[in-house]
Amino acid sequence: MSDIGIISAYSLKYETRSSLESWDMMREAIEGVIKKVDKGISPKEIDVVIVSNFSDNYGNLLHAGPLALEYLGNTGARAFRVENACASGTTALFLAHGLLKAGAANNVLIVGFEKMSGSPSGAAANEVLAKAAHPSEILAGASFAGLYALMAKAYMDRYGLREEDMALVAVKNHENATRNPLAQYRRKVTVEEVLSSQYIAWPLKLMDSSPLTDGAASIIVSRNPKRYTDTPAFIKGISMRHDYPGVFERSDLTILEAIKEAAEDVYRQTGLSSRDIHVFEVHDAFTIAEIIIYEMLGLAERGRGASLLKDGVVWFNGSHPVNVSGGLKAKGHPIGATGVGMLAEVYWQIRGEAGERQVKGAEIGLVENHGGTGATAVVAILSR
Amino acid sequence: MSDIGIISAYSLKYETRSSLESWDMMREAIEGVIKKVDKGISPKEIDVVIVSNFSDNYGNLLHAGPLALEYLGNTGARAFRVENACASGTTALFLAHGLLKAGAANNVLIVGFEKMSGSPSGAAANEVLAKAAHPSEILAGASFAGLYALMAKAYMDRYGLREEDMALVAVKNHENATRNPLAQYRRKVTVEEVLSSQYIAWPLKLMDSSPLTDGAASIIVSRNPKRYTDTPAFIKGISMRHDYPGVFERSDLTILEAIKEAAEDVYRQTGLSSRDIHVFEVHDAFTIAEIIIYEMLGLAERGRGASLLKDGVVWFNGSHPVNVSGGLKAKGHPIGATGVGMLAEVYWQIRGEAGERQVKGAEIGLVENHGGTGATAVVAILSR
Repeated sequence: MSDIGIISAYSLKYETRSSLESWDMMREAIEGVIKKVDKGISPKEIDVVIVSNFSDNYGNLLHAGPLALEYLGNTGARAFRVENACASGTTALFLAHGLLKAGAANNVLIVGFEKMSGSPSGAAANEVLAKAAHPSEILAGASFAGLYALMAKAYMDRYGLREEDMALVAVKNHENATRNPLAQYRRKVTVEEVLSSQYIAWPLKLMDSSPLTDGAASIIVSRNPKRYTDTPAFIKGISMRHDYPGVFERSDLTILEAIKEAAEDVYRQTGLSSRDIHVFEVHDAFTIAEIIIYEMLGLAERGRGASLLKDGVVWFNGSHPVNVSGGLKAKGHPIGATGVGMLAEVYWQIRGEAGERQVKGAEIGLVENHGGTGATAVVAILSR
Repeated sequence: MSDIGIISAYSLKYETRSSLESWDMMREAIEGVIKKVDKGISPKEIDVVIVSNFSDNYGNLLHAGPLALEYLGNTGARAFRVENACASGTTALFLAHGLLKAGAANNVLIVGFEKMSGSPSGAAANEVLAKAAHPSEILAGASFAGLYALMAKAYMDRYGLREEDMALVAVKNHENATRNPLAQYRRKVTVEEVLSSQYIAWPLKLMDSSPLTDGAASIIVSRNPKRYTDTPAFIKGISMRHDYPGVFERSDLTILEAIKEAAEDVYRQTGLSSRDIHVFEVHDAFTIAEIIIYEMLGLAERGRGASLLKDGVVWFNGSHPVNVSGGLKAKGHPIGATGVGMLAEVYWQIRGEAGERQVKGAEIGLVENHGGTGATAVVAILSR
């Protein structure tokens, strides 16, 4: 498709409550990603900075673009903030890729951050999240747990999925997180522990849900990646698709159409299929989401997603490991940083730098990141 | 520069307290701008929708991109939200122009909205605004009135500007607003009234400040404008520049460097100078700002901005009318909509559709829109 590639990545450790202010988190991510370029880069070589951030209710910061330029040390670049709910980070990559492809920039720095503990209370944090739903859902007082619960219920009714099947997503991703020093929750959980956790919206329990997280992550994307590193992660394909924002507006609650369309688009762009991918980072905001994502990405037939968990396919040592970082569930889900962090993880995997969680021989990776209940979905394939 | 042009514009009347929800405001702006295309356009011809919105604290809406696609009637397009404080709307144009120039889109719809009355109280509304300042200013409890007051004081000290000189900006823009049915405040004010209004941050008074406003505006920008209208507003030049976010970081408080650089850039792109422009819409968030903007745009020498008010140059019947819409001061300042509304005004002026406020023979117009205390500035020149 092009020679555009990621040449550096950085992430703060994801945490429940960071001692840093949101702007300090952003600053560390910017300074860190500049320092990590193998052959070095000057701030003046960055033409555009895209800030990915969800809500100023969390971090108390707006107009973060020019501040990012100050921290970068290049106020001569251009900067702006982008928001597409939980898919803000990969929306930034979608835009960066377009700018680079058009020759409108040579190097784009993407920095995502969210300090969700900056919100006055846990309840308030969920109210802020809910603003990413359809207005009719917002006015009805719906939570994302409630909306994903509708999908889980529909899926269980149609395909006989059980709560213990969904629990396996949490068990797998928590096990993966034990190998990731950047993860928020580095402890194993059992199926029993997941099943006995509190219901937040039947059939979903607390341990089916991703947590509130403070975090920041950053990448640099270049038109001339080989100038900056011998081992970039080339962007082989990227697609952004949308669906109706409201769950109530969709004819089938057991699928996430925008993800399916984006995946098909990216497979078409690259000539690859899900079988060719060595490592997947996907948007497991709730356990049911990961199971549906398997199917949307073509890893499993409709209604058969959970079999991949039972057969070991998507575990760390399986043939198609998913969320070896720990995923949103255990690595954490700092909204604006999430998509950027996924891209960083695949970059490290492809370079063989993922330490204890390195997937052997990983050369091709896929990122699936979506917003709300899937009204925005971005799928990207990266490779050596 | 290119044949890219605006082919339609729409604006809700700006109001102090709208009876509409933020999403209904966005919906009206989208449906309205589609209907207003002279030769008609199908929603399927829109490839990208860019939403310009400042804070979800006001409108309680996030992830507005896919919702905009639903209202448009084309979920097959791409959408995202962009934020650069008060310059969000023209940042959206900067991005749209880049996409169109690169051939990555044929038609981009930009919709800006802000429902500032959605914030719990007036004080809270100002706290939200302050998040667009530098973190050190945020932590110090600075307000934008306070920050612009620093500039006003420095300017008064150096050039002998008086409070009654600044008051003329408010008097002029309020008079202009009486001719604009879209304006929030359609009443004249006198110098005495401005001078006797309450100090909000000496030397700035309430009547030196733009108000809190509910509003939405929209435009469509096309690669093939003549296909959709015989009288588009061509984008002859556009530039986005940045400065340090903090007023305390700048060596000279009497200038706004990013505006100057953006203006020089646009004059270079177009071969035009300020003398060639028939109508100006500029970012008079505070009266002092408009005076400094005159100088940054080259309409007046340094320190001589206020003379344009005294000499009549920038009044409705002057040689270089500025803010014939009423400006932020009297038309209103619904943050996310502001830049889009300025572009809409110049579009109407160039087409000769501005009714009672029409500047005779207006063929070339300039928009200056900035964020925060000038850390982001966009200048664009439009022409027949």
